[in-house]
Amino acid sequence: MKAEATPPRGFRDLLPADVALRSAALATITRAYTAAGFQQVETPAVEALSRLQSDSGGENEKMLFRILRRGLDEDAPLPPRDAADLGLRYDLTVPLARYYANNRAQLPSPFRSLQIGPVWRAERPQKGRFRQFVQCDIDVLGEPSVHAEVELCAASLRVLGELGLSGCTLRLNDRRILTGMLDGAGVPRELHGRVLVAVDKYDKLGAEGVAAEVRALQGLEPAAAAAVVGLVEGFGAPDADAAMPAGAPEEAAADVATITDAVRRLVPGARVVFDPTLVRGMGYYTGAIFEVAHPASRSSIAGGGRYDGLIGKLGGVDVPACGFSLGFERIVEIVDPQVLLPGRRVVALLHRDAGPVAVGLLQQRLVADGWAVRAVRRGRNVRRQLDELQQQGATHHVSVSGDDPDQELAVREFTAG
Amino acid sequence: MKAEATPPRGFRDLLPADVALRSAALATITRAYTAAGFQQVETPAVEALSRLQSDSGGENEKMLFRILRRGLDEDAPLPPRDAADLGLRYDLTVPLARYYANNRAQLPSPFRSLQIGPVWRAERPQKGRFRQFVQCDIDVLGEPSVHAEVELCAASLRVLGELGLSGCTLRLNDRRILTGMLDGAGVPRELHGRVLVAVDKYDKLGAEGVAAEVRALQGLEPAAAAAVVGLVEGFGAPDADAAMPAGAPEEAAADVATITDAVRRLVPGARVVFDPTLVRGMGYYTGAIFEVAHPASRSSIAGGGRYDGLIGKLGGVDVPACGFSLGFERIVEIVDPQVLLPGRRVVALLHRDAGPVAVGLLQQRLVADGWAVRAVRRGRNVRRQLDELQQQGATHHVSVSGDDPDQELAVREFTAG
Repeated sequence: MKAEATPPRGFRDLLPADVALRSAALATITRAYTAAGFQQVETPAVEALSRLQSDSGGENEKMLFRILRRGLDEDAPLPPRDAADLGLRYDLTVPLARYYANNRAQLPSPFRSLQIGPVWRAERPQKGRFRQFVQCDIDVLGEPSVHAEVELCAASLRVLGELGLSGCTLRLNDRRILTGMLDGAGVPRELHGRVLVAVDKYDKLGAEGVAAEVRALQGLEPAAAAAVVGLVEGFGAPDADAAMPAGAPEEAAADVATITDAVRRLVPGARVVFDPTLVRGMGYYTGAIFEVAHPASRSSIAGGGRYDGLIGKLGGVDVPACGFSLGFERIVEIVDPQVLLPGRRVVALLHRDAGPVAVGLLQQRLVADGWAVRAVRRGRNVRRQLDELQQQGATHHVSVSGDDPDQELAVREFTAG
Repeated sequence: MKAEATPPRGFRDLLPADVALRSAALATITRAYTAAGFQQVETPAVEALSRLQSDSGGENEKMLFRILRRGLDEDAPLPPRDAADLGLRYDLTVPLARYYANNRAQLPSPFRSLQIGPVWRAERPQKGRFRQFVQCDIDVLGEPSVHAEVELCAASLRVLGELGLSGCTLRLNDRRILTGMLDGAGVPRELHGRVLVAVDKYDKLGAEGVAAEVRALQGLEPAAAAAVVGLVEGFGAPDADAAMPAGAPEEAAADVATITDAVRRLVPGARVVFDPTLVRGMGYYTGAIFEVAHPASRSSIAGGGRYDGLIGKLGGVDVPACGFSLGFERIVEIVDPQVLLPGRRVVALLHRDAGPVAVGLLQQRLVADGWAVRAVRRGRNVRRQLDELQQQGATHHVSVSGDDPDQELAVREFTAG
């Protein structure tokens, strides 16, 4: 009956080694952000359906898991659209907006929020993509200036460094620059979205590919298309620090320069580049936007930006806001367990005739010496048993003889292979 | 619009101070159990409805949140009983049984599981009771002897000690002793459950109250009722170490003696008492049962027992099992923040004319010295601002003058009151 024991489709069980690595990563993230002044909050997994279906969640709203209303007559047919009143959250931003409106009297201003928790989306199941996954968001609410952007970017790059992910590149852009560029090229506002979808593909398709898509856009005048293509052809490699394009508003250009300079100074060795092709999908960004790339991951491992106006729209309290989201599930795939779980010492304590008191006291001695101890009854085939214990994560083993709690213990290291 | 911003009925937001305390408690729990050889697992929040409605969850099944099936025609009426295919877990035992069946090839035997996570129950909302709360279960799967009971009880008492909860009492009993007692008193097996419900109230109603309930039980012969009342009147105070009652099977009495002696020796100073009135609600226990009482909490703060047979029934793999569950939500209500979060040093960094680089560099200096730093722009009314910062958890404050990142910083402690 093995098949029946699997989790529901698209969900997963985590083995102890996975949980250990994830917990260590979360502990590092929490410690570093807390030191930088962020405060951890927690919201329920469940929100009112009306809040989750407010039309601000974009594509994610379509992947909503709805919860059946309680107290219904089990046999009285009801259209599905009326059968649910709650839903599982699909991101942490909608709950944060509600949380801030609900609790701001007790929160400092600016409020630096750290929220880590599972979210649920009915994604089409595919390799490496799950219907429950952890998001890790940091947000600064109530700070209108680039102080917020600088703090978020510097703190996040430092966190990634503490996770052992060196070689990160922070790509920076600003929605106002994108808007200015397209305005300058003569693209009407109602076509900005579609042109940006094409520009967003720059790192995959290159200048030529983007140019082809832009020229093919229905309703875009050839002159405007040519102007956009001209801009795109001036972009360098996606990773290189580009020049400020024509049409960029002064204030936005100055902000990008300030953020770039400050992050470079605050995180020595950080690679920070201005990337005019960076768009980011969500429509709600209003200012600076950023993304972190790492050589070990094909997609970005973190990203965010300024989204003034959204918190007010979602929660009823209008407050300037800027956020960063670590792609936790991608990050745990590329971190090195040796960095996050260094020097783990797990000793298997093999006993046969020892009672629970002797085993317990011997275990306590080892725990006091810093070991994690897994007691196990010695089997017939000790060779095979030791192999299994090593596979299950023990780094050392020790054999107990008899029931004497005061006996000498000779801890031995498993040899590699 | 304040009212609209509250979480759904029965759910709650956690403020930063709450999250900090809960995280510290969880870190202590995880560290101590891990040292004792337990390995943390994680299962999804969502399980198949058929698994959650298998009739082994008792009362909890009635409090199940069901999740609407995806892909339904929104307008085609459907009876609620057919509209859902998944549900939110209401405990961690049903998922553990499935997890073990799914993953046991990769797990050691015995497997010491630590599982911590939220569960959901549609409880009637009332003070201090929530529809989402954290459970913390440790279980030993695959160990038929009292080694398991001793490990669980000793490790758990030690964890409670590390949480600063001294003065705990471990109450011990055995389902086989209860069965033997009632058999000896001539109570027919089919009435055991109802008699035990009465006996379970001993600490609330006393001997007289229990006797009255037993005598009133329909279908119970007066002679059997009198025999039970005789037993009950022989019980001492619920907290005192009782004598083994007549009818207790030898093996069970020996197990209780072994566990009591071993736990006392492994946790010096632990209060361990045999309590023949301890019943515990769930019907699935088969051997030793235990509960931890603490003077600061009216209800027990932890409990568990042996439940051979249940894992097989729930998950398809028959394995002896013994578990302990910490009442996490009750525990965080009575722990002392000073014990779990000692020496927290949070400094508010007040600046006015400093740019993000100066603020960032000054912050880094303080972080390197072990401070958590919350930067904030100095307002007009500094007196009031400082009061608020203190209320929001800052322990110290420091003022920045100008934009010089190399300036001297004079950190001051907030005075009490």
